[in-house]
Amino acid sequence: MGKDSKAKKKAKRADQDQQGTGDGAVVSKAEEAAAKVRARVKSAKKLAKARKAERAAAEAALAASSTVEDIAKQLGIPAAPPPPFEDLGSQLRVERGFVLADLDPRSTPGYSGDKRSAELDLEAGRAELSDLQERLFANGKDGEGPSVLLIVQGMDTSGKGGIMRHVVGATDPGGVKYTAFKVPTAEERAHDFLWRIERALPDPGQLGVFDRSQYEDVLVVRVHDLVPQAEWSKRYAQINAFERAAARKGIVVVKVLLQISSDEQRARLGERLDRPDKFYKFNPGDIDERARWSDYQEAYQAVLDKTSTKGAPWYVVPADRKWYARLAVQQLLLEHLRDLDLQWPEATFDVEVEKERLAET
Amino acid sequence: MGKDSKAKKKAKRADQDQQGTGDGAVVSKAEEAAAKVRARVKSAKKLAKARKAERAAAEAALAASSTVEDIAKQLGIPAAPPPPFEDLGSQLRVERGFVLADLDPRSTPGYSGDKRSAELDLEAGRAELSDLQERLFANGKDGEGPSVLLIVQGMDTSGKGGIMRHVVGATDPGGVKYTAFKVPTAEERAHDFLWRIERALPDPGQLGVFDRSQYEDVLVVRVHDLVPQAEWSKRYAQINAFERAAARKGIVVVKVLLQISSDEQRARLGERLDRPDKFYKFNPGDIDERARWSDYQEAYQAVLDKTSTKGAPWYVVPADRKWYARLAVQQLLLEHLRDLDLQWPEATFDVEVEKERLAET
Repeated sequence: MGKDSKAKKKAKRADQDQQGTGDGAVVSKAEEAAAKVRARVKSAKKLAKARKAERAAAEAALAASSTVEDIAKQLGIPAAPPPPFEDLGSQLRVERGFVLADLDPRSTPGYSGDKRSAELDLEAGRAELSDLQERLFANGKDGEGPSVLLIVQGMDTSGKGGIMRHVVGATDPGGVKYTAFKVPTAEERAHDFLWRIERALPDPGQLGVFDRSQYEDVLVVRVHDLVPQAEWSKRYAQINAFERAAARKGIVVVKVLLQISSDEQRARLGERLDRPDKFYKFNPGDIDERARWSDYQEAYQAVLDKTSTKGAPWYVVPADRKWYARLAVQQLLLEHLRDLDLQWPEATFDVEVEKERLAET
Repeated sequence: MGKDSKAKKKAKRADQDQQGTGDGAVVSKAEEAAAKVRARVKSAKKLAKARKAERAAAEAALAASSTVEDIAKQLGIPAAPPPPFEDLGSQLRVERGFVLADLDPRSTPGYSGDKRSAELDLEAGRAELSDLQERLFANGKDGEGPSVLLIVQGMDTSGKGGIMRHVVGATDPGGVKYTAFKVPTAEERAHDFLWRIERALPDPGQLGVFDRSQYEDVLVVRVHDLVPQAEWSKRYAQINAFERAAARKGIVVVKVLLQISSDEQRARLGERLDRPDKFYKFNPGDIDERARWSDYQEAYQAVLDKTSTKGAPWYVVPADRKWYARLAVQQLLLEHLRDLDLQWPEATFDVEVEKERLAET
């Protein structure tokens, strides 16, 4: 093929490209596809690079963390960094005269950090929570010893699920007794309202967790008149008596109300309607309940007035900022666990004898 | 005071220092104490520095991690790094003719990494496990849909507790139904051996976890002749029928045997006797059980021979290396969850209508 012929072909191709027909169109489609592939490869390389960076950072974090542990061990100092709070309990505890409506749900009592630092502090608290939970568990092995019961209440979307996932999720499932209280079943309705609660109490050594609780029986029940006032109005005293009995059995009750604002609830419900991965959390009834916002606030105020006792006080956690609420609940758990001053139990056997027996096997 | 006088005093002091009496001794003690304080301050500074490094590394990890997520989101690619295994299930699954004694408990089938990389891979798997578990949960909201049941068996010290803490612990407690099967209670003994198992099965959407299981009724029961052979020998078929019925209800059963060596068990029991924080895990009976090692191995072989079915096969995980066992069990869970191809459920309501209703509140 001569020079002229090549030039002609090229011109022809260019022509065809203009018209979008023939070989030229195929070539241009192929080029388009190639460009897409190149872009994909480039993005994939970018992703691979980012993953490499992530892994390097994770390795650095691991390395730094073992350094901290080593140094701390040499010094005989606990490896955990200093806690982000000083006695958060006393700041969130409900005392006589507390007015729920006066609390700013966006506030972050006792904490000066931001979202990013709260995530780090939450992460840092996991190790201590895990350690204290194991000590609790170890002390319950003989069927005695204390237990802890975390009760979580709050309006729809207040973040109860996030507390379960991010705070309770950091503990050993083998030591947790978790119960989500839903609309009572037929069997549950056939008994006193505290019957199902009693069965869900933690055994010695366990961390009990109530996702909703006996308090629904003076909240939704009161707001919707599900039983006569004469009946629900007695329940506050019944609950207090029940919690006193639990305390006598060694159960440390930590009652948390996650308090969000009405605006924040609207935003969170809106998010559930915007995201297909959140549809399952939405129920049209949530909007009906929302219409009774002030009735619920009133019912919560009554709960705080009547059941924040010395032995089992309420802690109201501002929850418009999820990162604060999670960190605060973790901290409340930690403070109650620390107060138990849990030591590793003594051996119930002769260690030297057992070592000899083991050596013989 | 003149020059001479000073020099004299100094000499006197040096003299007293030699004798270890008088002011000089006090000074030298103070100096000693000061040195200690200086050392402590130095160490504390070192610790503070290490903590700072740890935090910086953690921040870098977080930043890198959000970069990965952002890029992945742009690409529409899952953010999780590529899995460390290719179809681990097919490598650990018990097929006809499997001989337990031939397995090397220190081996790491399908994994070429080491302890450090396994820790990173385990960490990396948490996000996917958490995501898949939430999808499982979402699909069970209407009381239908599949569930997954992880059964963990293994000799004492084989690491069952570590699986609970490090693998199951990465899931949302709100979606987990965990049961540790102990020596049966009087109530449990009054029923068929599968009665308590039935009650512990996961509901739709739940991740069920059995720490020991129905298999104890053909393991410890067989080794100790707790019931006549005529009775326990029927149980294999009963268990298979039970598991088939569970499968028909949509329960995906994942049966894991953590296989350790006798030497590794001796070392781990020894550690429990060496460390006061591990005493609580030790029971003198563990050494009596250890004497029956080969009986137990025989009983396990029978379990694998008779109950590794097509619908509910056993996976034997070499467990002398805890880091491998944890990663492998996480991977087995992930593979079974991925196979369910869980999509977010469709809205059961009219999204636009609900958005309007919400806007009106």
